[in-house]
Amino acid sequence: MARLLCVGIVTWDWLYRVDEIPPTPIKIEARDLVGTGGGMASSAACAIGRLGGAVEFWGRCGDDAIGDQILADVRSYGVRVDRVRRIPGYASPVAAILIDKRGERLIVPYYDPALDQDPGWLPVEDVPSFDGVMVDVRWPRGAGRALDTAKAAGKIAMLDADLAPREVLDDLMARATHVVWSEAALADWSGTADPAAGLRAARRHHAGFLGVTVGEHGFRWLDGGDVRAEPAPTVDAVDTLAAGDVFHGAFILALAEGKPVAEAARFANVAAALKCRGFGSRTTTPARAEVEAFLANWRVD
Amino acid sequence: MARLLCVGIVTWDWLYRVDEIPPTPIKIEARDLVGTGGGMASSAACAIGRLGGAVEFWGRCGDDAIGDQILADVRSYGVRVDRVRRIPGYASPVAAILIDKRGERLIVPYYDPALDQDPGWLPVEDVPSFDGVMVDVRWPRGAGRALDTAKAAGKIAMLDADLAPREVLDDLMARATHVVWSEAALADWSGTADPAAGLRAARRHHAGFLGVTVGEHGFRWLDGGDVRAEPAPTVDAVDTLAAGDVFHGAFILALAEGKPVAEAARFANVAAALKCRGFGSRTTTPARAEVEAFLANWRVD
Repeated sequence: MARLLCVGIVTWDWLYRVDEIPPTPIKIEARDLVGTGGGMASSAACAIGRLGGAVEFWGRCGDDAIGDQILADVRSYGVRVDRVRRIPGYASPVAAILIDKRGERLIVPYYDPALDQDPGWLPVEDVPSFDGVMVDVRWPRGAGRALDTAKAAGKIAMLDADLAPREVLDDLMARATHVVWSEAALADWSGTADPAAGLRAARRHHAGFLGVTVGEHGFRWLDGGDVRAEPAPTVDAVDTLAAGDVFHGAFILALAEGKPVAEAARFANVAAALKCRGFGSRTTTPARAEVEAFLANWRVD
Repeated sequence: MARLLCVGIVTWDWLYRVDEIPPTPIKIEARDLVGTGGGMASSAACAIGRLGGAVEFWGRCGDDAIGDQILADVRSYGVRVDRVRRIPGYASPVAAILIDKRGERLIVPYYDPALDQDPGWLPVEDVPSFDGVMVDVRWPRGAGRALDTAKAAGKIAMLDADLAPREVLDDLMARATHVVWSEAALADWSGTADPAAGLRAARRHHAGFLGVTVGEHGFRWLDGGDVRAEPAPTVDAVDTLAAGDVFHGAFILALAEGKPVAEAARFANVAAALKCRGFGSRTTTPARAEVEAFLANWRVD
């Protein structure tokens, strides 16, 4: 069984399903409400857990009731969380996310500025015991430390390259073995909306694996000088929130299991697409058996 | 010591303080986040508790973690909550409230449609042991039952007349001894934006006490054929959320203590105004001593 580690952010998200996100401040009743843990690295960890990997999450949350709820939620996916740091006096992050019937989202997170950024406590001596590490951009110092240790140990050191300041992305890209961008972040960083051109621009800063998730279009990656593509299956998407995180988790899991890139991308595309069929962010992440069953029957046109 | 009972709604509110409420669905970081119990009757009860009254709240919430949090919060104001009904399988109400720097609010509550409306369990045989009962419009059947019992026992039976369907307001008005409107609800119900004209219109449906809160302008009420006014003190208002609920709680408490209407209104105007100086809905309700100290020094121009 592949053993993975995810390092980064964990939050509590309240998802309010509304008909329309109003353009002016009024009162609108939500049709549905889902409370769930969120945050990129923790959602990737939850996906790995649900997809059958052995996985641990390292990060920080408050020593408060929301923190208890966050960790119980991550644990419920089969993720080890006992080395998460609880920071006294720090308020765990909580976000309001309004999602309308077209999938448009108004996202209002609160991050307590009192968050301790020191990564010195991370038990990095254990990093070599994992087959791979995945980090997000929300805790650059922790991410850098985890990437360095994984890379030095010859393990997968993957960066989930989401929207972040350029200096954060440049620094973490240099320390990773694998960089998997979101489409918006690659466009923002490279100055081009063309994912292929964006990947080629990133090649000048990163010699390892470079890929980008392109939503309903699936995944693109650099293979030598070529840009290769794996399409995503078409589904009736109800909620795409955390779909990228599920892709990242599934992708590193499949690579750590020894699958070639194209097969890993296919597996991750299916996991992420199936997630989108239900409302509720990562709560609708499919189990391994669902993904395998879908893959067994799926023929790309 | 005056003994009061409040019957109605209790919720959990997450207040996100933002610079601007965006007109389009984007991501904006909140500057501050406060989690607090909310809902009209429960906030009035909390105000009574903080202002030194003996007070109990009757209502319903889920048998869930949010329900635990809601009741612990109400209890922390000195309110008795052990007769609140916990409804298995019902999700306690949670609202996202975005408040911008001008005080504009986008309010997104979720109410589980599975809420049991039956008021048969209310221990109304104890209503006569209270000096007064205050109800909100969000649980009409419970409110009606409590008002009937209080009125029959010769106690104050006060309706917080907020925005609600006309048939609900007409029914509850007929069963109350005191009706205290919000300005918006009176305008909506009466079809006139003039509070004095609205009160005179309400007189044709209610023979008892009729008043209306008018925000920073304080309170207006009918005294025979005259409309009387008590101004509110001027404060730097940061957050007016729950100010009306604090007014209602303070007002019924003062009446139950035997104060004349003008004096009770003055007390309630000050309690509500002081609440508005801090961010955080009812969490900034002043203690009795603060209100008394302000009143001792306040001279209306």
